[in-house]
Amino acid sequence: MQKNYVQEILSIIHSGLPKAELAEKLSDYHEKDLADALEVLTPAERQSLYSILGVDTVAEIFTYLDDAEPYLKELPSHEAAKVISNMDSDDAVDALEDLDDTDKNEIVNKLDKDSVEDVKMLLSYDEDEIGSRMTTNYISIKNDMTIRQAMSELVKQAGENDNISTLYVVDENEHFYGAIDLKDLIIARAEESLESLIVRSYPYVTDREQISDCIDRIVDYAERSLPVLNDAGKLVGIITSSDVVELVDDEMGDDYAKLGGLTGEEDLNESVFESVKKRLPWLIALLFLGMLVSSVVGAFESVVAVLPVVICFQSMVLDMAGNVGTQSLAVTIRVLVDENLTLSKKLQLLWKETRVGLLNGAILAVMALGFLGCYIHFFKGYVWTSAFLLSGCVGLSLIVSMVISSLVGTLIPMLFHKIHIDPAVASGPLITTINDLVAVVVYYGLAMVVLIDLFHLA
Amino acid sequence: MQKNYVQEILSIIHSGLPKAELAEKLSDYHEKDLADALEVLTPAERQSLYSILGVDTVAEIFTYLDDAEPYLKELPSHEAAKVISNMDSDDAVDALEDLDDTDKNEIVNKLDKDSVEDVKMLLSYDEDEIGSRMTTNYISIKNDMTIRQAMSELVKQAGENDNISTLYVVDENEHFYGAIDLKDLIIARAEESLESLIVRSYPYVTDREQISDCIDRIVDYAERSLPVLNDAGKLVGIITSSDVVELVDDEMGDDYAKLGGLTGEEDLNESVFESVKKRLPWLIALLFLGMLVSSVVGAFESVVAVLPVVICFQSMVLDMAGNVGTQSLAVTIRVLVDENLTLSKKLQLLWKETRVGLLNGAILAVMALGFLGCYIHFFKGYVWTSAFLLSGCVGLSLIVSMVISSLVGTLIPMLFHKIHIDPAVASGPLITTINDLVAVVVYYGLAMVVLIDLFHLA
Repeated sequence: MQKNYVQEILSIIHSGLPKAELAEKLSDYHEKDLADALEVLTPAERQSLYSILGVDTVAEIFTYLDDAEPYLKELPSHEAAKVISNMDSDDAVDALEDLDDTDKNEIVNKLDKDSVEDVKMLLSYDEDEIGSRMTTNYISIKNDMTIRQAMSELVKQAGENDNISTLYVVDENEHFYGAIDLKDLIIARAEESLESLIVRSYPYVTDREQISDCIDRIVDYAERSLPVLNDAGKLVGIITSSDVVELVDDEMGDDYAKLGGLTGEEDLNESVFESVKKRLPWLIALLFLGMLVSSVVGAFESVVAVLPVVICFQSMVLDMAGNVGTQSLAVTIRVLVDENLTLSKKLQLLWKETRVGLLNGAILAVMALGFLGCYIHFFKGYVWTSAFLLSGCVGLSLIVSMVISSLVGTLIPMLFHKIHIDPAVASGPLITTINDLVAVVVYYGLAMVVLIDLFHLA
Repeated sequence: MQKNYVQEILSIIHSGLPKAELAEKLSDYHEKDLADALEVLTPAERQSLYSILGVDTVAEIFTYLDDAEPYLKELPSHEAAKVISNMDSDDAVDALEDLDDTDKNEIVNKLDKDSVEDVKMLLSYDEDEIGSRMTTNYISIKNDMTIRQAMSELVKQAGENDNISTLYVVDENEHFYGAIDLKDLIIARAEESLESLIVRSYPYVTDREQISDCIDRIVDYAERSLPVLNDAGKLVGIITSSDVVELVDDEMGDDYAKLGGLTGEEDLNESVFESVKKRLPWLIALLFLGMLVSSVVGAFESVVAVLPVVICFQSMVLDMAGNVGTQSLAVTIRVLVDENLTLSKKLQLLWKETRVGLLNGAILAVMALGFLGCYIHFFKGYVWTSAFLLSGCVGLSLIVSMVISSLVGTLIPMLFHKIHIDPAVASGPLITTINDLVAVVVYYGLAMVVLIDLFHLA
């Protein structure tokens, strides 16, 4: 069983041990667990804990808080500034953004010089740009150093920068020159040249790239960190693996939310109004598109008036078409996100979705034909031939509408993708509407032509 | 602009340089880019490239291949075994699983002793267990070493194990003792005790834990790696940050697929039958549940027979209820996955969803009342009072069914979660059906009671 570290930490804090001993014991715990413990302490206990742990550790603990605001507000602004100055630049920005503007400005004014610069640089990027997620916490060495010099530079910088597994090499103009795997430096002999350790053509991203454009590339390299360069080729920061985890989580969470008809991911603590704001756009779009469907259904009023039994299966045909469309949409969105599709790949996907729709439609049509035929005979009192004509009409509608729904569910997101509109947002309501329309026309159309006109079933 | 490293690599390979120079130049590229280049070379070019690069690099390149099978098959089995022996244990297992059983067994028999043990251990875990995803590529040192000994142990092991940013400390029985941040070891003075650097209460996971149970904990620690212990407390492997990226991607992709009505994530290369298999279960469930809805709609045939105009708005009311339900489902699933909810938190979520449903329903009802009223008057030729009675009936149905759908969309996944059935799979069809039923009963019920019985609109 997992040990409960938070409980252990709390009992250590409440043990009344002398400060030095307390500090010693607490240094055995991970900052994340200390952060969890922080949340259940009283403000006075926190105050005394901070002085025991020192600003470095407190800064690390604060990066693990879900919302740093209440804790930062407990501190005098110069102390809060000290804590934030000791954070990684991206964590510092996150923490500052938890605060309201007055508090933020007061603290920013008291940050140390390096931190102010870093924070200002990160804030200068748009939140969709990869630059806004990077950290300036990395080891940078010059390309003309010896192995020994590089090693001592590492020791010097490691106190402040803890992303040390890759060392970034720059030339005399601070332009990115290459990267060294720390492992290679550690096992290198002193007489080797540093140059031989440097991977010159190291993968990188540029600071103004859209996160959604480079996230897959970053993930594919599976590195502990990747350098971020500006347009001039200068090294401005790095993206660490924990940034990547966050980025992947955000991107996928976004796709997920949009598939669910939300404009953004929601969490438990959001207000009702926030939630309404995220959900209403989709619903309003659907209401108006729904009116379109209504007017088309209206055109078949005459069918329903003479053969009311057909309305029983409208919801079934529409639901099936809708679900098939959603399945195709879900697949297509992920494929579009993951890969750059050529035209032939797109046609291939389209052709595949058509066959999947046809096969699924055929299987379900056979089931519908059998089961619904019996249902209509026994429960609705129709004779066998009429019952099977009716259920055959439902089955045929299922095949046709499922094939078309598969196509629509694949084509619409591709189209939006092509014209640079986020397909995950825009596709849902449109696909639902088109599929509803298609299903309605096919189903009632078949009922009108086959059942009423041809077989005079009314 | 991003440089095209693959193109560069190809022109180097095709340059006809002597081998030593070629090796030197290629060492400047990342293994991922080399892997991409590999895919466009001829088998003969690949053969000669392998001998130039050496087995260590080739092993790393192979870990970046999407499907290693064709490349492994090109090699004689003893060479393939050498490549796989040089991979991280989890990558080795991945590569072996790309092969068919005959090839796999032939290669496994030729792996070196350490690799066989590691591979067998990893394969002994269920694929949902965290143990199946760990690697045995880590630095392990004894707790009674000095700083100097630890440092030289690191140098010794770093050649084979490249996850060096955290050093794992074990006691004389190989039980996990704690972890050392490499940074701390690097900046430590030789006379310090190693003990003072060891974080004793370091976070860990146990090998038999379900991935879905511990993934959030792992992500929260945001570490470069976390140790994996067995029940006895022995260190058996580590989970690296790139494993975490993969795990998050898998978990979220799974939730995403299930919300889209698929039983699992699909990719472009899957066969039609694979896809049908993933999508059909949901559709069949829905077909049968749809029959239930059909029979309820059937009970209102009499309403439709006398007032056919009501069928125009059935699809609108049902679509809206369905979408609201999906929104609540999407939110609830993520909340259930992310946090361990207490009963009071659950009630809080339920209460919030109710209010969101009510507010959205009310806004849409007012819009429906106004717009549909005009539509019915102008296009369907009803007098104003009748038109607004009809549209009021639609509006009222929207409010009621949206509130109930919100509740259903929240309660059903909570219920499934409670009885340990994956709510992401089971909830969809059930919620759609219940919401359809509710919407049908509310809408036609209101139409029957208010429009026909009360106002004799027929």
